[in-house]
This record gives sequence, structure tokens and C-alpha cells, in this order.
Amino acid sequence: MIVRDKPTKLELAFAVRGSIVPAIAPRIAVLMVFSAVMVLLHNTLPTFPEIDAIGFTVFGIALSLFLGFRNNAAYDRWWEARKLLGGLLADLRSFAREVQLFVSDRASQEKMIRLSLAFIHLHRANLRQLPNDPQAKALGGALANAPHPPNAALDAIAEEAAWAYRAAQVDGFGAKALQERLGSITQQQTACERIATTPLPYVYSLLIYRTTYLYCLLFPLALVGPAGWMTPLFVGIVAYVFLGLAEVTEDLSHPFGTTPNALPLDAICRLVEISLAPHLGEKAPQPLEAKEFYLS
Amino acid sequence: MIVRDKPTKLELAFAVRGSIVPAIAPRIAVLMVFSAVMVLLHNTLPTFPEIDAIGFTVFGIALSLFLGFRNNAAYDRWWEARKLLGGLLADLRSFAREVQLFVSDRASQEKMIRLSLAFIHLHRANLRQLPNDPQAKALGGALANAPHPPNAALDAIAEEAAWAYRAAQVDGFGAKALQERLGSITQQQTACERIATTPLPYVYSLLIYRTTYLYCLLFPLALVGPAGWMTPLFVGIVAYVFLGLAEVTEDLSHPFGTTPNALPLDAICRLVEISLAPHLGEKAPQPLEAKEFYLS
Amino acid sequence: MIVRDKPTKLELAFAVRGSIVPAIAPRIAVLMVFSAVMVLLHNTLPTFPEIDAIGFTVFGIALSLFLGFRNNAAYDRWWEARKLLGGLLADLRSFAREVQLFVSDRASQEKMIRLSLAFIHLHRANLRQLPNDPQAKALGGALANAPHPPNAALDAIAEEAAWAYRAAQVDGFGAKALQERLGSITQQQTACERIATTPLPYVYSLLIYRTTYLYCLLFPLALVGPAGWMTPLFVGIVAYVFLGLAEVTEDLSHPFGTTPNALPLDAICRLVEISLAPHLGEKAPQPLEAKEFYLS
Amino acid sequence: MIVRDKPTKLELAFAVRGSIVPAIAPRIAVLMVFSAVMVLLHNTLPTFPEIDAIGFTVFGIALSLFLGFRNNAAYDRWWEARKLLGGLLADLRSFAREVQLFVSDRASQEKMIRLSLAFIHLHRANLRQLPNDPQAKALGGALANAPHPPNAALDAIAEEAAWAYRAAQVDGFGAKALQERLGSITQQQTACERIATTPLPYVYSLLIYRTTYLYCLLFPLALVGPAGWMTPLFVGIVAYVFLGLAEVTEDLSHPFGTTPNALPLDAICRLVEISLAPHLGEKAPQPLEAKEFYLS
Amino acid sequence: MIVRDKPTKLELAFAVRGSIVPAIAPRIAVLMVFSAVMVLLHNTLPTFPEIDAIGFTVFGIALSLFLGFRNNAAYDRWWEARKLLGGLLADLRSFAREVQLFVSDRASQEKMIRLSLAFIHLHRANLRQLPNDPQAKALGGALANAPHPPNAALDAIAEEAAWAYRAAQVDGFGAKALQERLGSITQQQTACERIATTPLPYVYSLLIYRTTYLYCLLFPLALVGPAGWMTPLFVGIVAYVFLGLAEVTEDLSHPFGTTPNALPLDAICRLVEISLAPHLGEKAPQPLEAKEFYLS
Repeated sequence: MIVRDKPTKLELAFAVRGSIVPAIAPRIAVLMVFSAVMVLLHNTLPTFPEIDAIGFTVFGIALSLFLGFRNNAAYDRWWEARKLLGGLLADLRSFAREVQLFVSDRASQEKMIRLSLAFIHLHRANLRQLPNDPQAKALGGALANAPHPPNAALDAIAEEAAWAYRAAQVDGFGAKALQERLGSITQQQTACERIATTPLPYVYSLLIYRTTYLYCLLFPLALVGPAGWMTPLFVGIVAYVFLGLAEVTEDLSHPFGTTPNALPLDAICRLVEISLAPHLGEKAPQPLEAKEFYLS
Repeated sequence: MIVRDKPTKLELAFAVRGSIVPAIAPRIAVLMVFSAVMVLLHNTLPTFPEIDAIGFTVFGIALSLFLGFRNNAAYDRWWEARKLLGGLLADLRSFAREVQLFVSDRASQEKMIRLSLAFIHLHRANLRQLPNDPQAKALGGALANAPHPPNAALDAIAEEAAWAYRAAQVDGFGAKALQERLGSITQQQTACERIATTPLPYVYSLLIYRTTYLYCLLFPLALVGPAGWMTPLFVGIVAYVFLGLAEVTEDLSHPFGTTPNALPLDAICRLVEISLAPHLGEKAPQPLEAKEFYLS
Repeated sequence: MIVRDKPTKLELAFAVRGSIVPAIAPRIAVLMVFSAVMVLLHNTLPTFPEIDAIGFTVFGIALSLFLGFRNNAAYDRWWEARKLLGGLLADLRSFAREVQLFVSDRASQEKMIRLSLAFIHLHRANLRQLPNDPQAKALGGALANAPHPPNAALDAIAEEAAWAYRAAQVDGFGAKALQERLGSITQQQTACERIATTPLPYVYSLLIYRTTYLYCLLFPLALVGPAGWMTPLFVGIVAYVFLGLAEVTEDLSHPFGTTPNALPLDAICRLVEISLAPHLGEKAPQPLEAKEFYLS
Repeated sequence: MIVRDKPTKLELAFAVRGSIVPAIAPRIAVLMVFSAVMVLLHNTLPTFPEIDAIGFTVFGIALSLFLGFRNNAAYDRWWEARKLLGGLLADLRSFAREVQLFVSDRASQEKMIRLSLAFIHLHRANLRQLPNDPQAKALGGALANAPHPPNAALDAIAEEAAWAYRAAQVDGFGAKALQERLGSITQQQTACERIATTPLPYVYSLLIYRTTYLYCLLFPLALVGPAGWMTPLFVGIVAYVFLGLAEVTEDLSHPFGTTPNALPLDAICRLVEISLAPHLGEKAPQPLEAKEFYLS
Repeated sequence: MIVRDKPTKLELAFAVRGSIVPAIAPRIAVLMVFSAVMVLLHNTLPTFPEIDAIGFTVFGIALSLFLGFRNNAAYDRWWEARKLLGGLLADLRSFAREVQLFVSDRASQEKMIRLSLAFIHLHRANLRQLPNDPQAKALGGALANAPHPPNAALDAIAEEAAWAYRAAQVDGFGAKALQERLGSITQQQTACERIATTPLPYVYSLLIYRTTYLYCLLFPLALVGPAGWMTPLFVGIVAYVFLGLAEVTEDLSHPFGTTPNALPLDAICRLVEISLAPHLGEKAPQPLEAKEFYLS
């Protein structure tokens, strides 16, 4: 995630880090060259078709609505993902407190809290598809090789709780509290996996990209008459606006990735470590800092 | 569900799998031929009416808003359905853990977990209207012939829980926990059935399809003057954009179907099997893989 | 509720059942005749004012936004109402299971489940304002004459639960479970009553209908010049689109009514009966079928 | 709240009760006179500037989006407020049932239910800023003079519950049930206070009113050429649409006020009285009726 | 937060407090001067390019949609933040009641309530990044120096609850109630931190500011022909509308700041003090008053 204040005037003009321009510059260039060729043909061929702009207004409104919809859907995925990660952080904070409140056995307490730490790192590695993530492997141990590692970690916590309940190390109220918290953690873990494995319907991508390119390729025909050699400039701006938004949307709809706009999973896992450290009697580590405005 | 990455340039131009084009190509063709006939008539009949484009701008904006609304409503149904399926997955994961935590009797534990597996397959068969689904029949046994099979499976779990409670195999805290989990499963099962049995209001379909066709049939009258033989091209694009969106919307509003954009119920049921296998002491099966980008 | 598949081409052209056309046809006809008179006056009176279309674009966009807002609000009411009814169905299913899990006395079990059946029918009669509904009267008995019948039914269930708790027929966990379920049922019942008794703010109806009519009456003045005798056709289409949407919106904002777009309360009550029958040891009735595509 | 059916044709033309017209008529008149002066100046001064309409299309779209946003935000506040009041009604219904289920002492039961009645009236008086409301004073007694009366009423209920718990008049399950219900009531009471004390950001009011007036004052300059003496009519309509929506929005964003569009707090408090009467062994009062379509 | 009624006519024209004008006036001035230079060049250079307005309509619609989206997202953050603060207020009110209901030991009761007061001030200081806030330091004591002060305060409450549970000063029901309330407080505290630390994606800021400036810089080229010396006026208005909205959006997306549109954290903390005072046997302080319409 890019962590940066409101852009200053200089950044507005030149910021590249966090900007979408590098990703779409080649495509904008191709479209601008194409439209320059159109202007040339128009100026040399007398029979070059010149079309009325009426169709483009409706076309442009429809395209704006499509992109607007997809942008909303993608942003909602991104923000929901952030809420779920925050919810997991809150649940793990509460879990540690509840373990101390209800579980008598100190060793069992520590085991459960350490398993919850392993869980969040295994969950991170699962979401980012990093089967060999060193931290997840170190904390998770054998769990990291299970068919579904984060699930296995929660199973292990539940087993420990079942042991403690049967050993009367935790009473009925405590068992109920731990079960509710695990249920809430499971709900949010599964919701993260839902976002990670269910892309926006592919048919929208096709529909939107095809419509955007059609628009950018046909637009010169309408502009070439009234705008002349300003045509490539306008086509460039329109392509920047539409392709830029389509690209941002693509990024945000994969919130657990490692693009500049993806969520800072490493930093959130660190926050969990900071919050759980006092319950393990350890010194809290430092929060992760952004490097060149990027928080991983 | 189509599982595919961001379309590459080649796919953009030629992808058919997952595209809406095959479904609407005949209708687009008819509209293009119709508008070509209009151009011909216009060029030969001197009295052919040529109308001003002013009405079409407002008409087009209204149509965009209609389609935008219906698209939002359909996508919301699709995404809510996905959330519910994910919620059921999470609840079944939690249910297995809670059964192990609170139920003493091993046989009773296994019976409940197997019934929950039967439930999810019967639920899938019910949503997809597959009364003879082999897997549901195999797992569900007699339950598959009940008036409402998934409901009968949950009734059976509740009965087993009632037996265990009276037999003191589960204590009050456990009975409370199982009751709450069953309540949550019931809530989400019923919500899936709501989406499956309550279509988007039919009146919208009529209003939107009628308006779209009226627009596409009248649009040539406004274009024929300024655009000449480019008219069929423009009509084709407008028809692609509007009919394409209407068709995608139709698909997404039935999220439990088997269209390319419907949800992968089979894959989600498999995920449940993978998650419950360790609790039954079985080896987890492999996750379902997409075939030609399609996950069933 | 109209239960019909995607309209076929024939239905698109001629479907009347479920269409909004019959309701608004007279008004469309009046507006078309009015605009035909305008064309006639324009062609005969040389001083007839002809106005520029510039004002109409903004006017039309504003009107589209208004109608779009109201349509969203109405659809949200309709869909929330459907969610609440589905939630009640789920809660009644869970209630029956919880009664069997926690209440020892068989007669008390049956009494509570029968009261819950009476509740849903009294609730339906209350929402549809049918004080003499035969089924509600038959099931509700004396409760049907209470100042607020569905409320009285829930009071009766709560009293039965209080009796059972004091008679030790239900333990503390059971009393807690029943209380939570009743609380959830009450929440959803009250929410249904909120939708039934709180219309969309009246001021919107005035603002939107007045604006729509103003638009349809003034639009001919702008069209008469460029479109000539096509004017009535265009006015007819615009009136169809705007009045049609306004009318659909009016219907959907009263989801508990008996219009073709209202919710199928009878069918949902039947679903409750089907779900509760096994718990009463009775044979489940058949689901309600749509008659001429209409499910009551 | 105005309680009125769909407007008939006559009401559409002449309804004043519930209409926004009286509030904005003077401002519309000023703008129409201003634009008439513009037409006069334009017709007499040859150097009068006549400007192109191009700027106004974008301006109008931006203004529509602003007003649309504010309208959505205001309607959301209004509808959330209605949901909260309905939620409180449901919670008080459940509270009375739970008191009867769990509290053994009849006097204590009655005391708690009467305090809950006092609470809802003190809450109403607090939201409407009526420190001397007679009914709230009668029911609340000394509580009405507390720094925060509704809060004091809930404190009194909690104290009564604490007394009953210590006196073993209510068991642990009952104490837990009452505590959860009080927590839910507190959550909704505080949410009502949030809406009442946090207006929509003031900066939007300035931005939107300033933009609306600028638009209405400059619009004649663009219309005066093409529309001539029709200009005042168009300006009047545009002012009606934009100022009307702005005004409705202002009203709805204060849902607890006493404007025609505010919520019927008196009627909802009466509904609480009707629902609680049977629990107090009293005869239920009649529901409040609308006076001249207005429900207070 | 600015607390002000609906603007009067005079305020509309001259209000500066709470207005966005001072922040953007310099930029508007620059753009107006720039466009005046354009007009001058256009009037003196015969070869000055004059471009058609067609591109600007679509450009303007796209820009409106972008700004509309960002405005919605920012307002949602602001309103969610307000809901969370209100939720914390409600939870702390309920917490104090629950402590009195379930904890027998008076000293332990007071300790927990005082810790909850410390929590809310430490939370405020954390959100506003005020490590040396005097009130937070006074109430929090050693907690204010913890790695994460509000978290440490909640840990301290949980420890006190654990002590009381082991010392049998609180029973199982009470421990469960306190654990649930702490869980809810943790959830909302973490959600506030989510909003404070996760800005709107930076890429949107770049995309929107760049598009807005491009629009304002190129717009004169289209206006200069038809509007002449009115151009700077129009550019000024368009810049006011677009930059104003962008700026408001920037403000609202940081709801815990100290800008005029940020939330009144001090006043909300005071409300907590007022609500908890009776539980500590203290006199409630006065609510905070707005100074020059500003509530801190």
C-alpha cells in the first residue's frame, strides 16, 4: 500500500511511485500514434469518412457507467478485505484476553496464543500464495504442510480448547467464549479466502476492455474534423482517464496481492505481534515502516 | 465460474469462452441488417424521415441508468450468494470444531459431521434443482427423498443433538453452542433459497428489454443522415454494449445456475469436504480444478 | 409476484401480464394526443413558439437521477422486505428445532410450534390488512381479536416458555435460547411493520410526478421543430420510460400488497407450514403454485 | 410524517400539504423576475453578452451529482433513524417478555416495564429537545431532571436488575438476557443521538447552495438567446427542481424534527404503549391517527 | 466539526468559517488568470487553436463520476467513523451498567470504570496522534507509555476482570458479559484505527487531481471561441465546483483530524464522562460547547 499524504503540486506533475501511468503509457502511446495517422489520412484522402459526434456522447456515458460500476465493485472488495483484516486483528486481541480470563493453565494459555500467531501468518501466506514463506513456516511448524494450513492452525486451537475443557482447565463459560471467538475468526478467514479466490466476473473485464478500446479507436473519426491536429492530445487524455481507471480497478480487485495498491498484510501481521507480545510476556517489536512510501 | 486472469491483448480480441458475444451475436446481426436497410431506403427514397438526435441523448441516459440499476441489483445478488456460500463453509468448519469440543460421544460426533456434509450436498442439489444428484443421494440417503431435503438434514442434526443432550453426552453450554450454529446455518440456507426462488421483478425485464430494442430500432433514423453507411457499425456497437450488459445481468441474477458466470457450487462443496476430512480422520480430497477456465 | 423466465421475443412484444403498460396506457395516450395537437398548431400558426433543446438535456438528466434514486429506494424496500420474510422463515425453522432440543414436555412443544404457525399467519393478515383472513382466524383463535394479533401470538409463546421454565420443563440454557429466538423474530416482525406503515416520503412523489409531467408536456415544444410528425411517437416513448419507471417504483415500494410485483406472502407462509409439519408429526402440504405466472 | 396515498391527478396539480412548493416559492419568484429582467435587457441592449450553452451541460451534470449525493445521504439518515426507532420498539416488546420470563418478583417486573415506558418518552423528548414535555415528565418523574434523562432511565432499569439479581429474584441466565437487551437498547438510543447531533457536513450545504444559485443566476445568459420570453419559465422549472430537492434534503436530514417529512415519534411511542399494556395488565390505548394527513 | 444551521442568504454569500473557499482560492485565481491570458492570445493571434467542445462533455461526465465516487467513499469513511465513536460511547455506557450488575466488589467496579475512561482518552490521543495529550496522560498514568496505549488500557481491564473472576467477585455469567462487551469495544477501537491508518488509495488522488487540472487547463481552449471574455468566469466556477469537491473529499476522508470537517472527538469523550459520572458517584461535567461554530 502506498502511504503518502495529499499530493503536492510537484508530485501531481511528476509522481511515478504509486501512479498508474507507467503501466498504461505504452497503450496510450499506441492509441495516440494511431490517431495521428488518422489525422494524416484525413488531411490527404478526400474520401476519408468523417462521422458525427452524436453516437459518442451516449457511448461515452455508457462507458462511464460501466467503469463506474466496476470501480465501485473493486473498491468495495478492497475495503471489505481491509475490514476483514482489521476484524481479525481485533479478534486476535480479544482472543488473547479471553484466554487469560478463562484458561487456568499457563502453558495452555501460551500454546493457544502462539497458535493464533501462527494462524495469522499462515493465513497471510495462504492469501498471498507463498507456500514457502519463512515466517509462516517458522511459526506454523508442521501445520504449514497441512492441506489447508490456516484451517489446520484453527483446528489445533480448537483441539487445545477441547483438551482444556475436558481437563477442567477452562469452565463452560470459557469454552463458550473461546468457541464464539473461533467462530468469528473462521468467518473472517473464510471471507478473506472468498475475496482471494472469486474474481470479479470475467465477462465484465471483456465487456469493459473491449468497449474502451472500441471507443478509443473510433473516437478519432469524430474528432478529426473539428479538432484536427489536437486529436492525438484528446485521444491521449481520454485513453489516460478510461484505461487508467480500468487498470486501477484491476489492481484494487485483488486486495491481497503485492501491487502498490494492495493491502499491507505484513504490517497488519506485525500489529498482531505487537498486540499479543504483552500476553506472552515478550517485548513488542517495532511497527513496520513504509519503504519509499510503500508498506508491504 | 470462469477463472481467468486479466485478459491479454489477444484474448481481448478473440476470447469466446466466458464472452457474452455468442449469445447476442444473432440479435446484433439482425439489428445491423435492419439499419443497413434503413440507410438504403434513406438513400433511395427522398421522403424518408430523418429525425433529430436530441431525443436520443436523454433516451440513452435513461437507458444507461436503467441498465446500471439492473446491473447493480444483479451483481449484488451474485455477490450476496457468494457471501452466503462462504458463510456456510465457515459455519460448517466451526460446526465440526464445536462438535469435537462439546460432544463426548465419538460416534455421535461423527454422525453429526457426516450429516453436515450431507446437508451441504443436498443444499447444492436443491439450489441447482438436481433431484437425482448422485453425490447428494449417496450422502443423504433417505433424507434425499424428504419434502425439503436440506431442511430434513438439519432436522436430523438437531435430533441427534437433542438425543446427545438428554443422554448427557453434551452439556448445556454445548447444546447452546450447537443450537446457535444451526441457527446461523439455517439463516444462510434460507437466504440462498430466497435468492434462488425470488427473481428480479419481471416488470424490469420487460421495461429494459423493450426500451433497449426501441432504442436500437429507432437509433438508425437519427444516425442515417450524419453517419451514412457507418450507421450499421454504430448500431452494432450500441447493440453490443446495451444487449451485452442486459444479458450479463440476466446471467448474474441467477447465481446458482450453471452458466459460465454462475457460482462454483461443486468447488465450494469440495472445500467443505477438504475442511471436514481431518475431523473424520480421513484424507482430504484434492480441490476441484477449472476445466478450460470453467470451475463448476 | 410474477414468476416468469427471461422474456422471449414474442413475450417482449406482447406480454401484458406483469407489464406496466395497461396501468399507464391512458396517460401515455393523452400525452401523445396533446403533442399531436402541438404539431398541428405549430404547422398552422406561424407565431407558435419553438424552443431550444438546451434546457431539456439538463432537465432530463435531473429527472433521470430523481427517478433513479426513487427506484433504488423502492427496490431496497422490496428486497429488504423479502429478506425479512426469509429471515422469519429461517427463525421459525430454528425455533421448532430449539423447542424440540430444549423443552421436555411434548404437549408444551406442540403448543409452542402451533403458536408460531398462528403467528406467521396473523403477521401476514396484519401486513396485508386482512382482519378477517380465514386461515389466520382459524389458527389464531382468540389471538386474532387482540389489539395487535401477531404481537399477542408472540406474547402467548413467551408465556408458555415462562410456564415451562418455572415448571422446570426447560432449563436455563433453553430459556435463554428461546428468548434469543423470540427476540430475533420480534425484530424482524417489527421491521416488516416499519416498511408497511412508513411510505417513501410523500414529498418525493409530488416532486417526481410533477417534474415528469412538466417534462412530458414541455418536451413537444422542443421536438416539434426538428421532429415534426414524429413528435407524438417520441413523446410516447419518453412517457413510457419515465411514467413506467415511476409506476413500477410505486408498486415495489409497497412490497406487502397484492399487486403483480408484491411479495408472495401466501407462498412463504406455506413454506413455513411445510417446514414445521415434520415437527408436528404431520404430512407436509404441497408448495403453492403460481397461477398464470402469479404467485400470491 | 405525511401519510397519503399515491397522489391523484388533482392532488398532483394542487396539493400543498406535504409539498415543498410553499417553502421555495419566494426564491423561485425572485429568480424568475431576475431572468425576466435579463430578457428585457437582452432585447434592449445590443451589447448584452449572450453565452454558449456548452459550459452549462457539464455544470448541470455536476450539480445533479452533488444534489444526488446529498439526497442519498439525507434519505439514508432518515431511513436509518426509522430503523432505529423500529428497533427500539422491537427491543421494548422483547424486554417486557424477557422480564416476565426471568424475573420472579411481580412488583419488580412492573417497575422495570414502567421504567422502559418512561425511557422511550424521555428519549423522544431528548431527541426533539422538549425539556418540558408533559408526558415525559409524568412518566419519568425525577429522571426527567437528570443531566441525560434517557440515560438515567436505563441506569435505573440496570439498578433494578442488579437488585433483583442479588436478591435472587432473577437467575444468571435472566441477568445475562436483561443485560444483552439493555445493551441493544443503549446501542440504538446512542445511534439516534448520533443522527440528532451530527448534521451533514456544513461544507456540503455551502457548496451545494452556492452552486445552485450560481447556476440559476447564470442560466438565463445561455437561454436568453434561443428561448427568449420562455426563459423565465425554464428558469422557474430548473429552480423548482434544484431548490426543491435541496430543501427536501434539508428536511429529511433532520429526521427527529417536526417538519411534515420528519418521523412520527409520537405515534411510535404510542405503539410502544399499546405493545406493553398487556404486560402491565392494562387496556391498550388507541393508535394515533393522522390529522390532515399529518402523523406527529 | 462545524455546528451550524441551514445557511441563511447572508451566510450563503459571505460565510468563510466552514467554507472550502479559502483553501482553494489561490488555485482558482491562477486558473482564472491563465484563462484570461488564453482569451488575450486568442484575440491577438489569428492562428490560436480553437477546439470543439465535443470532447469536453464526455471528459466532464467522466470527471464527475470520478469525483462522485471519491466523494461517496470519503463520506462513507467519515460516517462510519462517527458510527464507531457512537458505538464506543454506547458500549462504555453499557459496560458501566454491566460492571455494577455483575461485579460485587465496589473497588473493583470503580477501577474498571476508571480504566474505561482512561481507555477512551488514550484512544482519542492515539487517533489524533497526540502522544503528550495532558488528559490522556493524567487518566492513563503508566498506560500512556505502553507501545499501544489504548490496547494496554483494555488489557488492564481484562486483567482486573480475570482477577475478579478468580476471586469469585464476578460469576461466570458476569465474566461472559464483560468479555463480550470488551470484545465489542476492541472491534470498534480497531475499526477506528483501520480508518486512521488506511488512506483512500493514493492512485485515486493522483488520477483525480491530474484529471481535474487537465480539464481546467484545456477547458479555456473550447470556451474561448463561444464565450470570449466570459471564459475566466466560467473557468473559475468549474474550478470552484471540481476543486472544492476534491478538497472537501480530502478533508472528510481523514475524519479523526482537526480540520473544520473532522469529528468532534473531544466532545464525544466529554459525553462519555457525563454518562459514566453517576456510576462513579460524581457530578457530571457540562457538555462541550461549540466555539465560533466549531466543536473540537
